[in-house]
Amino acid sequence: MKSDTQDAIDAVLALDRLVHEPARLAILTVLGSAELVEFGFLETVCRLSKGNLSSHLSKLEAGGLVAVDKSFRGKRPLTRVAITDAGREALQRYRLQIAALIHSAPDPDN
Amino acid sequence: MKSDTQDAIDAVLALDRLVHEPARLAILTVLGSAELVEFGFLETVCRLSKGNLSSHLSKLEAGGLVAVDKSFRGKRPLTRVAITDAGREALQRYRLQIAALIHSAPDPDN
Repeated sequence: MKSDTQDAIDAVLALDRLVHEPARLAILTVLGSAELVEFGFLETVCRLSKGNLSSHLSKLEAGGLVAVDKSFRGKRPLTRVAITDAGREALQRYRLQIAALIHSAPDPDN
Repeated sequence: MKSDTQDAIDAVLALDRLVHEPARLAILTVLGSAELVEFGFLETVCRLSKGNLSSHLSKLEAGGLVAVDKSFRGKRPLTRVAITDAGREALQRYRLQIAALIHSAPDPDN
């Protein structure tokens, strides 16, 4: 078996499952391209229910990948989320690992 | 939010979870670069127990992504696995979707 295929297998097996879960991957992708994101915006863009989004954010926060800020806008509670440095590193590491998978692919055209 | 970030989010949310699960992604990656692979080889390369490998292969077979061949080598049962055309297409589609995620990444150096 080609060594780059073995590299891809090792990369896949080493994937951070906290990041790899699709909804959390979507959340981190949004946060990775912004400073501070409102809960409602994440709900819409990632097409998640309030409950699912809260549960994924709790896991990401427990893993140190995001920080959740709770405040008020007027009398209404406002939740905003930011990716942490550890979160950016985890996302970057994940992308490099997944890139190893893509570049190991035999070219289907030859 | 940049449109390519939205493209990445949509790609992530559309990911085929049958393929996305790390162990199954590893299995398909091996099968994608070979014709017919022995069960034992998959166990070793993908670092899976017999039970886990069997369970993932059943899901992949039920999804039509792999074909499992059972025969005998001498008196010993021999199980070999091949990716199907549908499996190759699913893996290729997955790679294109996940590539959208990588190319949407803001360059950390600027």
